[in-house]
Amino acid sequence: MSKKFVQEITAMDQDFARWYTDVVLRAELVDYSGIKGCMIIKPYGYRIWELIQQQLDARFKETGHENVYMPLFIPESLLQKEAEHVAGFAPEVAWVTHGGNEKLTERLCVRPTSEAVFCDHYAKTIQSYNDLPKLYNQWCSVVRWEKTTRPFLRTTEFLWQEGHTAHATAEEAAKEALDMLEIYANFCAEVLAIPVLKGRKTEKEKFAGAKVTYTIEALMHDGQALQSGTTHDFGDGFARAFGIQYTDKDNTLKYVYQTSWGVSTRLIGGLIMVHGDDRGLVLPPRVAPIQVMIIPIGTNRPGVLEKAEELKTLLKDKVRVDLDASSKSPGWKFNEYEMKGVPLRIEIGPRDLEQNQVTVVRRDNSEKIQVPLDKVVEQVVAILEDVQKSLLEKATKARDEKTFSATSLEELASILKETPGFIKAMWCGSRECEEKIKEETGATSRCIPFEQEKISDRCVCCGEEAKEMVYWGRAY
Amino acid sequence: MSKKFVQEITAMDQDFARWYTDVVLRAELVDYSGIKGCMIIKPYGYRIWELIQQQLDARFKETGHENVYMPLFIPESLLQKEAEHVAGFAPEVAWVTHGGNEKLTERLCVRPTSEAVFCDHYAKTIQSYNDLPKLYNQWCSVVRWEKTTRPFLRTTEFLWQEGHTAHATAEEAAKEALDMLEIYANFCAEVLAIPVLKGRKTEKEKFAGAKVTYTIEALMHDGQALQSGTTHDFGDGFARAFGIQYTDKDNTLKYVYQTSWGVSTRLIGGLIMVHGDDRGLVLPPRVAPIQVMIIPIGTNRPGVLEKAEELKTLLKDKVRVDLDASSKSPGWKFNEYEMKGVPLRIEIGPRDLEQNQVTVVRRDNSEKIQVPLDKVVEQVVAILEDVQKSLLEKATKARDEKTFSATSLEELASILKETPGFIKAMWCGSRECEEKIKEETGATSRCIPFEQEKISDRCVCCGEEAKEMVYWGRAY
Repeated sequence: MSKKFVQEITAMDQDFARWYTDVVLRAELVDYSGIKGCMIIKPYGYRIWELIQQQLDARFKETGHENVYMPLFIPESLLQKEAEHVAGFAPEVAWVTHGGNEKLTERLCVRPTSEAVFCDHYAKTIQSYNDLPKLYNQWCSVVRWEKTTRPFLRTTEFLWQEGHTAHATAEEAAKEALDMLEIYANFCAEVLAIPVLKGRKTEKEKFAGAKVTYTIEALMHDGQALQSGTTHDFGDGFARAFGIQYTDKDNTLKYVYQTSWGVSTRLIGGLIMVHGDDRGLVLPPRVAPIQVMIIPIGTNRPGVLEKAEELKTLLKDKVRVDLDASSKSPGWKFNEYEMKGVPLRIEIGPRDLEQNQVTVVRRDNSEKIQVPLDKVVEQVVAILEDVQKSLLEKATKARDEKTFSATSLEELASILKETPGFIKAMWCGSRECEEKIKEETGATSRCIPFEQEKISDRCVCCGEEAKEMVYWGRAY
Repeated sequence: MSKKFVQEITAMDQDFARWYTDVVLRAELVDYSGIKGCMIIKPYGYRIWELIQQQLDARFKETGHENVYMPLFIPESLLQKEAEHVAGFAPEVAWVTHGGNEKLTERLCVRPTSEAVFCDHYAKTIQSYNDLPKLYNQWCSVVRWEKTTRPFLRTTEFLWQEGHTAHATAEEAAKEALDMLEIYANFCAEVLAIPVLKGRKTEKEKFAGAKVTYTIEALMHDGQALQSGTTHDFGDGFARAFGIQYTDKDNTLKYVYQTSWGVSTRLIGGLIMVHGDDRGLVLPPRVAPIQVMIIPIGTNRPGVLEKAEELKTLLKDKVRVDLDASSKSPGWKFNEYEMKGVPLRIEIGPRDLEQNQVTVVRRDNSEKIQVPLDKVVEQVVAILEDVQKSLLEKATKARDEKTFSATSLEELASILKETPGFIKAMWCGSRECEEKIKEETGATSRCIPFEQEKISDRCVCCGEEAKEMVYWGRAY
């Protein structure tokens, strides 16, 4: 019975990309739309996003950030104000040319990111040091015209949050970009149970218009990296391009210093590829739409359904609980909710009733735990906490096991081929070497980690004196 | 002192439209953007929207609705599937013609509403009666190319929720459209403190593609109506156009029956124009970003600031409270938070400290209440509840006082001129009369109310036999 359902999705080892697609569809996270590259986020997938939003938004608000909403459209002339920025984004934007039946005098792009509109607003509204800092964030959708798309990982339209802040000094902006990276990293660890590397992007990989881009990088089951969030320190580059000045206490006009930072529905892709297994999705309790599914066994036996209902009532103030009292077989239900990554199921049948207990089964490690009925609430809460913790530990162990070092290009290439993962290697800092490494191995620089190690003295590529250690890897 | 600040905004009686604009800008709800017809929703305005969202979303979820996210773009061919629908919306959509540097083979419109994409999804995914009902909702932004725009009331882009449901029977869909109208009406009364009329739209005023459109209509201070939310019963019209069929229990193929329903950031415009006054915004506590503002008096006197901080700590688990300990004068602060519609302010000075009390001042009626320090939490909570209740009573009284009856077109016109408001009048049901009334008086049919009265036997316009009573009025 169990076999049959397992066959519904491709095995990870057999074809990881197909496994991924099978899971997102079969767990009812998304559906394809008729619009090329745009996904439909279904209720179960959207609920995960809502849980991510709520918990991330609370962290933003705690640290003094305020939500706003900026226009969806950016006039072409506004997008062009910052040269690097427009060069980076113009090739991949959707252009609105007509409103109703009339041709527009100026094309509008559908926002691929909103630096330009925030900067325009800041230029008009920031006057004095009293107006600083501005700590704005918005939750919205953005559009980037992608050629190859995959649900959550790369889609033409996606949902995200974008923070945009303006500060009086370069130091404050630099600190903000680092503080927000820390918030992202903690959120990934504590809520998504995903361990991430923190570091700086190379010049080649940084955001169009940024002085420095910081990143959090996660490692997927298949050894590929997922850039999971970035924060950018703009210095005063955008301020100079958009003319954002304030009168300081000393009565002189100064440019502001800015940051931006964002995470997106891509995090859901990360969740799937870090925790999932051959039976489907595995969700950390903090982002699980249903944390506990109660499955009555032998629903025709007296008292079973009543007890299951009672249990649901008992649990529902403490956890997100549901009861499947449908006529489908227990076996079907076990597989269905395993596929959907529900962290715990509670089996309750006539024998359990006799013994005044229920059977709690963990999705993450299949452990079965007998729990006395009078202790079920506290135990379920405790088990969920343990699941959350275990998932992070398991993911950290898996990541560490797939993290290697290389001291030559050959070694780097061979590791990537044999045991894909993160590869620590020294770098001279030149763009040439970075490009050569990509060309020859397919690996990109994921980040220059804050925690540096000295693997050797020499650049892994050219053998010249090394400046920094870099994490390399193939990436989504 | 108070005079001076009051002069900052235009008096309502002098110029209501300017008063409105002054309030939305001065209370920092919105700002104009460089993009024609698009507004920037600033933190204070967006926080009101978040509070609306949270409380409305909870009501949707309680009644079994699930959130999803559908693509922003609708291919032209998809929009064209339902004839009335495309005729209604095509003239006011924004068209995307280019993606990156390439011209698209088919134009995409930026969604003005999402019936077409939901129908397309339903056609692909609904197979059997087991798949019904589908009770989906999404929170998103939509775009309608408007010529004349005003913040919140009519903008090219606005935020809203759109529910889209599919049912097995006509009766179920009819019930859903009415149930959702009831949820909207209750939400307006209980949360926004806005009393609304409930009724049906005439054929002329109904949604493009609907069988029946229901509406909630509110009355603004200036006697103009605001359509505040609508629900639509589509019958099987969209299902036939998009081919949405399911296999019923009797093994025959049947079309589904559908509804859609929406409210938008327009509700914030309603809040302003129903409750506001010459000193600015007046917010019902349930949607007030700050419910209580603590203003210390004589901050240099020992103990005052400490006590104010203590008070904030005491209150913050029960209400949304803030403390303005800045160096600005108490007079400036009083006016500022009155402008922003904060329901209660608490003044705390040396004299209050001596007497172990604080002074609570209500924004809605300026009442000053002395509250002993040891009862401050329970009393503040109670006063906030009373404010919420009073605002609804006051708004209902104002609406009723501005509701009139007319039995002739002349009377209707004269009332609208002298004392604008809702006018109850009988109608024969003909489109000609509806159009003539609009032409001669500027009034449109707001709704055919569920609660019918018999004003006379004859149509207010043609004098023929009357079918129904209609509420008429000028509208935003």
